Amino acid sequence: MTEVALGIDIGGTNTVLGFVDRNGKCLFEDTIETQIHEDVDLFVKDIYEKVNKALKKFNNIKLLGIGIGAPNGNFYTGTIEDAPNLRWNGVIHLSDIFKNYFNLPVFLTNDANVAAIGEMIYGGAKGMKDFIVVTLGTGLGSGIVVNGQLLYGHDGFAGELGHVIVTPDGRQCACGRKGCLETYVSATGVKRSVYKLLADNLEESELRGIPFNDLTAKMVADAANRGDKIAIQTYEHTGRMLGEVLANSVAITSPEAIFLFGGMAKSGDLIFKPTKYHFEKNLLGIYKNKIKILPSGLNDNAAILGSSALVWKEIEKKS
Amino acid sequence: MTEVALGIDIGGTNTVLGFVDRNGKCLFEDTIETQIHEDVDLFVKDIYEKVNKALKKFNNIKLLGIGIGAPNGNFYTGTIEDAPNLRWNGVIHLSDIFKNYFNLPVFLTNDANVAAIGEMIYGGAKGMKDFIVVTLGTGLGSGIVVNGQLLYGHDGFAGELGHVIVTPDGRQCACGRKGCLETYVSATGVKRSVYKLLADNLEESELRGIPFNDLTAKMVADAANRGDKIAIQTYEHTGRMLGEVLANSVAITSPEAIFLFGGMAKSGDLIFKPTKYHFEKNLLGIYKNKIKILPSGLNDNAAILGSSALVWKEIEKKS
Repeated sequence: MTEVALGIDIGGTNTVLGFVDRNGKCLFEDTIETQIHEDVDLFVKDIYEKVNKALKKFNNIKLLGIGIGAPNGNFYTGTIEDAPNLRWNGVIHLSDIFKNYFNLPVFLTNDANVAAIGEMIYGGAKGMKDFIVVTLGTGLGSGIVVNGQLLYGHDGFAGELGHVIVTPDGRQCACGRKGCLETYVSATGVKRSVYKLLADNLEESELRGIPFNDLTAKMVADAANRGDKIAIQTYEHTGRMLGEVLANSVAITSPEAIFLFGGMAKSGDLIFKPTKYHFEKNLLGIYKNKIKILPSGLNDNAAILGSSALVWKEIEKKS
Repeated sequence: MTEVALGIDIGGTNTVLGFVDRNGKCLFEDTIETQIHEDVDLFVKDIYEKVNKALKKFNNIKLLGIGIGAPNGNFYTGTIEDAPNLRWNGVIHLSDIFKNYFNLPVFLTNDANVAAIGEMIYGGAKGMKDFIVVTLGTGLGSGIVVNGQLLYGHDGFAGELGHVIVTPDGRQCACGRKGCLETYVSATGVKRSVYKLLADNLEESELRGIPFNDLTAKMVADAANRGDKIAIQTYEHTGRMLGEVLANSVAITSPEAIFLFGGMAKSGDLIFKPTKYHFEKNLLGIYKNKIKILPSGLNDNAAILGSSALVWKEIEKKS
């Protein structure tokens, strides 16, 4: 009998799910569109049916629990609250809905916390007790581990590094405020920086031919790798903003390492080099040359692995 | 037999010590000048003799352990490292030296962490699991409690909120960098802000007659209470800087409350009002109107209480 956890990652567009064993082997995976169901109950029912069908294919599997990563997911309450990129508004008691279908323990937190737990159980943070995972996607999320435990904070909403204000009265943020880190450091932030640089400079750039809506961070990275100066400056600026904020966060939590996770982290030196440079430059003396900035050790199925890791982490806590 | 902890707070000028019982009652206290001994061993010997003499006066006391708050104190290593305001340079193995004299468990950390533990054991944070204590003195320190445990971080140096950079290329800091929070928010920061405002404005002020070296934060507070506009603007500016950084820290650790400790915290509304205003104004929506900013609940003997609390905290952890 193989014991597995069901990992579910709810994204704005797609929801991925899968069975993962204690060693991080993914035995089954599936995807459903998140937005097809206006009613969240039908969305969970859809997952329930897919999981049941899958379970029938395996005759030696035992499902121990369900781990869910979701935007604005709250570990303490099992709810998602006003997630801006989901169509289910208000406070959704997602864990409870899952428990109506599955007779299993359900653990839920936000996607960045899930990435941090995945890093700790299966990735590069194995054996570390104090580290930070920064997820770079459309926005910027973070999961902070302190003393071997995820930092949830008093209300379950700790670790919103993307909403540290870095430039007072800076760029407008989807959160309603201005100057948040994620308006600079994220796929969207990169696009905005490109357009700012195109506006401020006369430098020729292949990016001048691309409308804002069509531009991706990947296209900017490719242009930078071809030597496009605007694209290079964009990544330099992005890394500076990230390095400076990370240096400040170190003065708060003093981690052993910081992991960068997600699409942008895959652009390698382009983002790591300026980030590391400005990070070290801005660190208080006692932290200098001690803290590693690393790419995430999770690769394929990272989202499913991360959410399933939540189950293993909570089971270990109880035993 | 009354069980007591020996609390020792090492400051740049004076070291205070005392016996404290589990309820926070201080049964004995004494002070020695920190700087009279060039040799740290003789300094500890001095304390040892004072404690022994005191112990003889009580016939029903049992000393359980020693808690020490010291600048740059490291909980993990029991050392103080290059403390800028002490004459003992380099890495001083202070816990070991104490153990040479006393056959007791010795716990050491920095003064701000000691204040946080004191707040948790005897002060306003009783029963709280996630809170921050900001100590406002010559500099700005912080002790962060997460999940009921002090946040020491990987190397024991977490919680340096005073060295979060708030203004890139801002005021020169004693740490060698520029723009650290404590260059704005601290007794010294207040003096610097007064002089900046006196330079930038033509406004009459009673502070124009006072040389920098003679000016104290208390004098600025008194002037503000008498309606001096420069003094009022100084506290408004100080509170804004503090409120903004606290709002950013909330996005990292999501505490239940933030306590302000130390001389400047005693200036009441003068510092609390602008701090609270700019704190709330800069908070991410999910945190708004949830987090209290409070004066420390520790009063007399706060430094001795805090260091002794370290002993009770560690003893409870083990039992």
